[in-house]
Amino acid sequence: MNINSDRLWDREQEVGEFGRDERGGISRFAWTQEYREAALALIKWMKEAGLKVRVDTVGNIYGRYEGSEDLPPVLMGSHFDTVPMGGKFDGLAGVMTALEVLVSMREKNIKPKRPIEMIAFINEEASQFLGGHFGSKAICNMLPMNFADISVDRNTGKVLRQAMVEYNMGLDPDNFAGSFIKAEDYFAFIELHIEQGKYLLDADLPIAVIDDIAGIKQFYITFNGESAHAGGMAMKDRHDALAAAAATACEVERLALTSESRTRGTVGYVHVEPGEHNIVANKAIISVDFREARLDIWQRLYDDLIFFVENQCTNRNITYSVSSTINTEPCHCNDQLRKIIAESAEENNIPYMHMVSYPAHDAMQMGRLFPMAMIFLRSSNGGVSHCPNEYTTKEDLAAGADVLYTVIQKICNLDKVN
Amino acid sequence: MNINSDRLWDREQEVGEFGRDERGGISRFAWTQEYREAALALIKWMKEAGLKVRVDTVGNIYGRYEGSEDLPPVLMGSHFDTVPMGGKFDGLAGVMTALEVLVSMREKNIKPKRPIEMIAFINEEASQFLGGHFGSKAICNMLPMNFADISVDRNTGKVLRQAMVEYNMGLDPDNFAGSFIKAEDYFAFIELHIEQGKYLLDADLPIAVIDDIAGIKQFYITFNGESAHAGGMAMKDRHDALAAAAATACEVERLALTSESRTRGTVGYVHVEPGEHNIVANKAIISVDFREARLDIWQRLYDDLIFFVENQCTNRNITYSVSSTINTEPCHCNDQLRKIIAESAEENNIPYMHMVSYPAHDAMQMGRLFPMAMIFLRSSNGGVSHCPNEYTTKEDLAAGADVLYTVIQKICNLDKVN
Repeated sequence: MNINSDRLWDREQEVGEFGRDERGGISRFAWTQEYREAALALIKWMKEAGLKVRVDTVGNIYGRYEGSEDLPPVLMGSHFDTVPMGGKFDGLAGVMTALEVLVSMREKNIKPKRPIEMIAFINEEASQFLGGHFGSKAICNMLPMNFADISVDRNTGKVLRQAMVEYNMGLDPDNFAGSFIKAEDYFAFIELHIEQGKYLLDADLPIAVIDDIAGIKQFYITFNGESAHAGGMAMKDRHDALAAAAATACEVERLALTSESRTRGTVGYVHVEPGEHNIVANKAIISVDFREARLDIWQRLYDDLIFFVENQCTNRNITYSVSSTINTEPCHCNDQLRKIIAESAEENNIPYMHMVSYPAHDAMQMGRLFPMAMIFLRSSNGGVSHCPNEYTTKEDLAAGADVLYTVIQKICNLDKVN
Repeated sequence: MNINSDRLWDREQEVGEFGRDERGGISRFAWTQEYREAALALIKWMKEAGLKVRVDTVGNIYGRYEGSEDLPPVLMGSHFDTVPMGGKFDGLAGVMTALEVLVSMREKNIKPKRPIEMIAFINEEASQFLGGHFGSKAICNMLPMNFADISVDRNTGKVLRQAMVEYNMGLDPDNFAGSFIKAEDYFAFIELHIEQGKYLLDADLPIAVIDDIAGIKQFYITFNGESAHAGGMAMKDRHDALAAAAATACEVERLALTSESRTRGTVGYVHVEPGEHNIVANKAIISVDFREARLDIWQRLYDDLIFFVENQCTNRNITYSVSSTINTEPCHCNDQLRKIIAESAEENNIPYMHMVSYPAHDAMQMGRLFPMAMIFLRSSNGGVSHCPNEYTTKEDLAAGADVLYTVIQKICNLDKVN
């Protein structure tokens, strides 16, 4: 074994505990005191391992392991914020395995050709300050420059600027640009993450090589009809916003099931006004979430749904509007890096499979800049994630770190990635 | 004209104003101070007209006009509580026209054979203490004896007992039985109410003779599935409570549209948990409201929907439960009374049509005890009701009172109703 599985497991448990929520599970949101405590524990271990640590202007944490040559480093990592009442694995597994790889290399006194850096992205889950993938998007200059002033904690109303200052780690809400990295700054990016599904569990395999990360379209549709008495108004004379929304929710599912790909289509949020059992609704809002790995299908899903919505609204004589929140194209993982992950698994005698990631990850943003690949670890407990009983075994976590160790050794001795 | 249309209109406006809501419209809920003020204004006029006034143990207000013989009286009336942000007509039109009929009879010194009573039912809308048709149900012994202790204001948590005591009109929460009436106590019941729809408006007619009051089934269906990541979980492995609820909402509409009757089917309330755009919902609750005049269809609708729900839940491997809130059979209005209303309209040269009432009314409960019929008045403003711009013209209100006057004269001289 390349790494120390006891140390890895103990540290995963220790950091994972920060943000314990009395309602159950872990609520560790970016820029909070709980998050800060976790960050300080992480930084302490990084420094003990001799890594050069820096926190960028928005809160992403980097740790650098020097190479023998002044080349663009290999980057690896994930995030350690959680959803409300989440678990102790998720992105944290990717951060702690990255740390364990570097700690183990230091113990063995390994001198790679290229430098290696680990990264912990901030606010990937965006549980309070919405949007998702904040840290990786900031790095890629994908956020508005005034984001610290327009982003507001959805629970407390606190402005992001204030949260960044109160975090007290030297961040600079006026200098998002200080977090930018360029394509030439790094050589490649590897993210390890738990699966958040049960396909590895069903296949009885500990890890997966990710071939593609599905594109994601997330948007809200607001239907505006006319309220009426549930008894007084005949069906033919109604302008029922909720009926249009329900039909659209069914269509989201139908489009996903008939796309000829493994599309996911989800409506998870509904808001109805006035929301009374005896009043035809004048307003209904639904969220729509499509995930699809094939670009042509990913593009078609939205158009097909809006065609359906147009027809619904024409037939019911109501209006609608769409507000888009996420619109990220499918992302193909680098072929050479995927091959390296597969070879590394084989060399460590760890069986694996190939998989598409339907959840989105920070790796999608990194893939815009340099070659990128991902490793998934098996989720136990039926594959559940983003909940208190999310679980990955100590053995599987160690298997992931073992493979990551080998992958990183191989990549940091490459001259180029095709 | 049999009645004084100016006095009727002015009093409708005066009582209608109690409960003015700064958000718009009128919020006059049973047992509140606003309701009490309206009740006191009404009682003052009733006493001025020489009526013998009594308030029963739950808050229904009766006013008696003596007849020349000691016979079971004719009863007429409606309710004057409102929905939140409602209008100035609705049931109040039925209370004020009943008063106007008796005031006009007194002015003309008419001595009918039978006594005549007007009634103002309490808490028909049930805007705070849920259930609907409280006053008429209390009269018919359809409420649990401990209702004053188990019914709670949904906004403030106040128990009904307390509201009844604070109302300070001599009610007795421990004596619902004091409000009971028996079938032999009255001869017949007539309710006048606004249409709450636009069919009279479209037909350019001021009044309607109601042939039937549709039966109503109101219930909530709770779907229990399993939450999952909107990306991680493949469609085939989901147990999506919201998808089942959306399909069921569509089926409610389809069943109404294909029932071969003028069925109304409405889903107006939806609650989803956790209600996040990127999480497959583990729980969804919808309200269902069916209205149908034909007994066989009324019965079939529920069974057909539950058959659909069973299939949905089996296919999705989720569970459901149903909680029924209202289950009232269709009610046929008395043929002789309907004929009397039609003749009375003709005698007053007021054109009319026949209609089914899809909204439920206190008259349904009265119909359990003695012969019952209803008169509808045209709703202007596109037929909207239960909203601030609910409107019936002064002329239509007077036309309704005119017809009601003639109807009552005819009924109170009958020996029997077939």
